[in-house]
Amino acid sequence: MSTLGAQKSQQARALLNTGSVWLTLTREGSDPASKLLFDAAVSGRAAFFLHPDMTLAIVANYDVGHVERMGVFDEVVAYERSFTDALQACLTRFAPEVLYLNYSESDHLSDGLTHGQFLTVQRLCAEVLPNVEMRPSAPLLAKVRGVKTSEEVRRVQLAIDASCTLYDKLLPQLKVGQSEREIQGLMLAIAGELGVEMERGDYGGALVCINRVGLAHRAPGSDRVKAGDLVILDHGLRVEGYCSDIARTIYFQREGESDAPAAEQRAFQSAYDAITQAFAAIKPEIPGWQVDKAARDHHLANGYPEISHATGHQIGRHVHDGGTILGPRWERYGDAPFGVLEPGNIFTIEPTILQSPEPSMLVEENVLVTETGAEWLSRRQTQLWTV
Amino acid sequence: MSTLGAQKSQQARALLNTGSVWLTLTREGSDPASKLLFDAAVSGRAAFFLHPDMTLAIVANYDVGHVERMGVFDEVVAYERSFTDALQACLTRFAPEVLYLNYSESDHLSDGLTHGQFLTVQRLCAEVLPNVEMRPSAPLLAKVRGVKTSEEVRRVQLAIDASCTLYDKLLPQLKVGQSEREIQGLMLAIAGELGVEMERGDYGGALVCINRVGLAHRAPGSDRVKAGDLVILDHGLRVEGYCSDIARTIYFQREGESDAPAAEQRAFQSAYDAITQAFAAIKPEIPGWQVDKAARDHHLANGYPEISHATGHQIGRHVHDGGTILGPRWERYGDAPFGVLEPGNIFTIEPTILQSPEPSMLVEENVLVTETGAEWLSRRQTQLWTV
Repeated sequence: MSTLGAQKSQQARALLNTGSVWLTLTREGSDPASKLLFDAAVSGRAAFFLHPDMTLAIVANYDVGHVERMGVFDEVVAYERSFTDALQACLTRFAPEVLYLNYSESDHLSDGLTHGQFLTVQRLCAEVLPNVEMRPSAPLLAKVRGVKTSEEVRRVQLAIDASCTLYDKLLPQLKVGQSEREIQGLMLAIAGELGVEMERGDYGGALVCINRVGLAHRAPGSDRVKAGDLVILDHGLRVEGYCSDIARTIYFQREGESDAPAAEQRAFQSAYDAITQAFAAIKPEIPGWQVDKAARDHHLANGYPEISHATGHQIGRHVHDGGTILGPRWERYGDAPFGVLEPGNIFTIEPTILQSPEPSMLVEENVLVTETGAEWLSRRQTQLWTV
Repeated sequence: MSTLGAQKSQQARALLNTGSVWLTLTREGSDPASKLLFDAAVSGRAAFFLHPDMTLAIVANYDVGHVERMGVFDEVVAYERSFTDALQACLTRFAPEVLYLNYSESDHLSDGLTHGQFLTVQRLCAEVLPNVEMRPSAPLLAKVRGVKTSEEVRRVQLAIDASCTLYDKLLPQLKVGQSEREIQGLMLAIAGELGVEMERGDYGGALVCINRVGLAHRAPGSDRVKAGDLVILDHGLRVEGYCSDIARTIYFQREGESDAPAAEQRAFQSAYDAITQAFAAIKPEIPGWQVDKAARDHHLANGYPEISHATGHQIGRHVHDGGTILGPRWERYGDAPFGVLEPGNIFTIEPTILQSPEPSMLVEENVLVTETGAEWLSRRQTQLWTV
């Protein structure tokens, strides 16, 4: 029984007008939308229909029992010899005017339909629905992905709590002389102890950047932390299929220091306040770029360089979960900063200071958009941590 | 440095005629062909060109170093701002008459090109190569995937050996009263001891089916083995990226029994002999359906129900490795049963008896197609194992 699958498919169905049907085709797990929309993992070839009045699955005979037990679909059709006959029969039965399919040139998370499967649908429709209009489901999919149900919020919260605990456990283990790679190893080990999965991304796990060596999306190296270094950590954990994404900056004290130097403290304060400004700007119906601007303007007013990326992105089944972003209206972000916030969106807020000479600074929190504003999901970093 | 990537891309290039180019497009690992053809794992958006005279990769600026070090590509082009500009420039430069792309209606492993990315290629070609003919690479890809190099056979053999050892170690640990889930746990633990990865599939690891509860692709449950039960185990291990797939059936004796009852023994014998029949039918140039028929007819002649699926499939980078199958000429299998066997193919042989009332029976072996016939890669199950 998948309550989550029932909720998400219901949420998706509610976006459909009469006469439209949304078809997800997957084969050996090829379309990640089948996880998002139905919480469904089937290995055989399968078709999932969302119709304004019902949900229907076509699955291989050996998947039927499992899919029926999920309780997500009003009807489960089994095929043994011919998948396409079963698919064509359902297309004929629903006879939609508009058929939504999961393809997109720009959003890879909405592009799970393979071209071969598209050709199959096209061929079947030519025979029985010659006038059907095929449309990309991307706008609908982005909405279903972005507006989290309470169950999804619960899962993301578990991942966020685990990330905060991970930092709590890590801090006493850090010391001068450790390499970036060793610190990544400590973080992986703590994730293991907590029984959660760390997102490996491109670099084997958490980003660990000694500020002096360079702050960037890069693999942790063999450089060792020295006294006087700032170290920036950024990682995501996955719990029950949903992700956190939290970054922290830590100062390694020189002998005799009782706190970080003034420049580091001032940069931390600007990051902290920029997050507060962004948080305060969040409410439903506001476009993402306005939230970004609140943080962006704050750093600029404090004399720091302009943030070189978006202030925040959504998290969920993916660490970068697509849809509306809290970002500037730059060409590279397309329409994403113009999307408006909706209750149930979960965003990171990470208004980075990236400058040379040092200090650079990265603090990243996770927040939920509510009916009236926003709510913290992460326990904030309220001061520059020192070791 | 990837010797395997260099060998496989060379094998693929050798299939191309003058004037043809084979393009693999991947985004966040979307096309599994990039692993098969180039042994390449890149997370960013990338394009891999196979040309009769050279190989070329277009990758994000942050992936360049890694891809150059692989030593698979004659040329590596980095893009920073625009992937599509770089892609279009290479299409213009090669100016092929025929452009092979990875899509297929029938073979999911040759269908890694998403529809959104297809639309991008189509759009770019319309501008610079209006007369290019786009063709599915599936026949080429199936050949490259199916004809294993000696290095690939070596890796599959390692996985198969590990699977046989796993069953050896498991057998003494089995007893009446264990649940399906516990037995899966034992198998996972042994894989861990052996230092190999178990394919998790959709159900967390090996299939463990008490015959009485039902033989199907399903998650292991909390049902416990009773005396008199048949238990069917099926699992794949992955070693250096290549897989085994071996199933065994085990009888749990009642008190006083010194062997399995006659009905169970007879079903095992029919499965054993059906495997022998299929093995004997294997030789190069034979279509897959003929091998299937040998096993299928054997069970039917013995009065068992017709096998409800294919007798065997290829293994390699995937537990279900696509291409020619040893299966019946049913619509659901498309062209796959009509493909002919080639030296270097590795197949499972698993002619299941699925019937109610019991006993059902599943024994699965792995074999290599040679120049003259076939060779066992797995150590056969020669009798119904009893506990």
